[in-house]
Amino acid sequence: MSGTVRFGVSIDSRLLERFDALIDEKGYVNRSEAIRDLIRNALVEERTMRDDAEMVGTVSLVYNHHTRDLADKLTDHQHSHHEAIISTLHVHLDAHHCLEVVVIRGRAGEIRQLADELIGTKGVKHGRLMLTTAGEDV
Amino acid sequence: MSGTVRFGVSIDSRLLERFDALIDEKGYVNRSEAIRDLIRNALVEERTMRDDAEMVGTVSLVYNHHTRDLADKLTDHQHSHHEAIISTLHVHLDAHHCLEVVVIRGRAGEIRQLADELIGTKGVKHGRLMLTTAGEDV
Amino acid sequence: MSGTVRFGVSIDSRLLERFDALIDEKGYVNRSEAIRDLIRNALVEERTMRDDAEMVGTVSLVYNHHTRDLADKLTDHQHSHHEAIISTLHVHLDAHHCLEVVVIRGRAGEIRQLADELIGTKGVKHGRLMLTTAGEDV
Amino acid sequence: MSGTVRFGVSIDSRLLERFDALIDEKGYVNRSEAIRDLIRNALVEERTMRDDAEMVGTVSLVYNHHTRDLADKLTDHQHSHHEAIISTLHVHLDAHHCLEVVVIRGRAGEIRQLADELIGTKGVKHGRLMLTTAGEDV
Repeated sequence: MSGTVRFGVSIDSRLLERFDALIDEKGYVNRSEAIRDLIRNALVEERTMRDDAEMVGTVSLVYNHHTRDLADKLTDHQHSHHEAIISTLHVHLDAHHCLEVVVIRGRAGEIRQLADELIGTKGVKHGRLMLTTAGEDV
Repeated sequence: MSGTVRFGVSIDSRLLERFDALIDEKGYVNRSEAIRDLIRNALVEERTMRDDAEMVGTVSLVYNHHTRDLADKLTDHQHSHHEAIISTLHVHLDAHHCLEVVVIRGRAGEIRQLADELIGTKGVKHGRLMLTTAGEDV
Repeated sequence: MSGTVRFGVSIDSRLLERFDALIDEKGYVNRSEAIRDLIRNALVEERTMRDDAEMVGTVSLVYNHHTRDLADKLTDHQHSHHEAIISTLHVHLDAHHCLEVVVIRGRAGEIRQLADELIGTKGVKHGRLMLTTAGEDV
Repeated sequence: MSGTVRFGVSIDSRLLERFDALIDEKGYVNRSEAIRDLIRNALVEERTMRDDAEMVGTVSLVYNHHTRDLADKLTDHQHSHHEAIISTLHVHLDAHHCLEVVVIRGRAGEIRQLADELIGTKGVKHGRLMLTTAGEDV
């Protein structure tokens, strides 16, 4: 069963002062929230190292939409993986450039491979993958 | 004036073989495209170190939508920065969890600060910022 | 004045279970030590973003010692920055390859620049910089 | 057989200008050297994702040498892995703090585990692992 518990952390007072200054700057309302975020980050980071962990990936792609066939290729590519690709956000950055954020769900290894294919598509100027939790595990 | 030019790279043949294997695995159609991606990555990475560089950020946030007031807080927060936040994608991960991808445009330092505030909002389980080009500079 | 203090963290019991499993796997003897490490990591990461923060950098360079003049160039380079470079460790990896770990002390921006110069020296096969604390600040 | 070969890269002239400015700033003598470094980086990065890849790791540890038994524990720990740990560099940062750089050779997964154990030792203030090539593979 789940529920809120409490544990104590002993720490040097000067280290705690510096941490308080950091979390204040980052806008946290209290230490518990900041500590929980550090814990969740550590757990997510650990999972990204395991190819078989069920995760969610967001791939951000910037490309010039005048590039011949590129939008079609990206769309085709996404449709052929429609069971893994949940959703796509398209932003018009300027007269030429688009940002496309593709949300993928699956095992970390599969997400990485699909992200590589999207990023490697001729005409994509910059692309990067960010892996996060699918929710339940943190 | 802009246009396509060509330059030569001298390289050890075994290193080139390994690179060819890598780009084949990643799905690149040719070496030029793969090299251009490495170059653009290096340029984007350099810009992310400079707080005043005009960039685009995608912040991925995972949260439990049952958390009291969280969705409202995130929406309020985004509206009070509506000039910087371009668009938001919302995905229902399961009965409890949402993924929200927020696209922010501005100087790298400002994007980082706004991302910190969103990630630090009480109830957000995991959040991460990915900075990319606004298009023109690569 | 410095001294050990204690603060409490409230957390979901399942999240704590997962954290306990992670820190057990990583070999931590207790939660406080693991939490302090997460806190120090966050502080060090924050400092690496500020060019004027006093830090210590370790640059790891792998090179082929048969490369003409390379060892001399690296040595010259290090001597011309002798006030910043504290020490160097040299490891013979195989008949051809050396690993050189150069420890640099100074402001984060200066360390990065010197590291770039060392890594960019013709003949260096791979190089990377790792920034850490000079001790007092965490 | 190995030897130097040459290949051509076609690229937009403005992108090339920006790359030239970047590599000039980083101190590269020519484009080929900069491109080879990008290629080697990509190869090393790919290998760090594979737990069974033979690599070299440098673990940088900062600790307070007054911490009871810490130096002994770190030494014991390293001796019990003497076949993997090649060498250690010790730097006195100030009256209290030491930097220890431990060079480990082995499979990426084993290096990571040993690094986790060293970094997790009670009293180590900050630690980080950097993986690089063992030489032959790039």
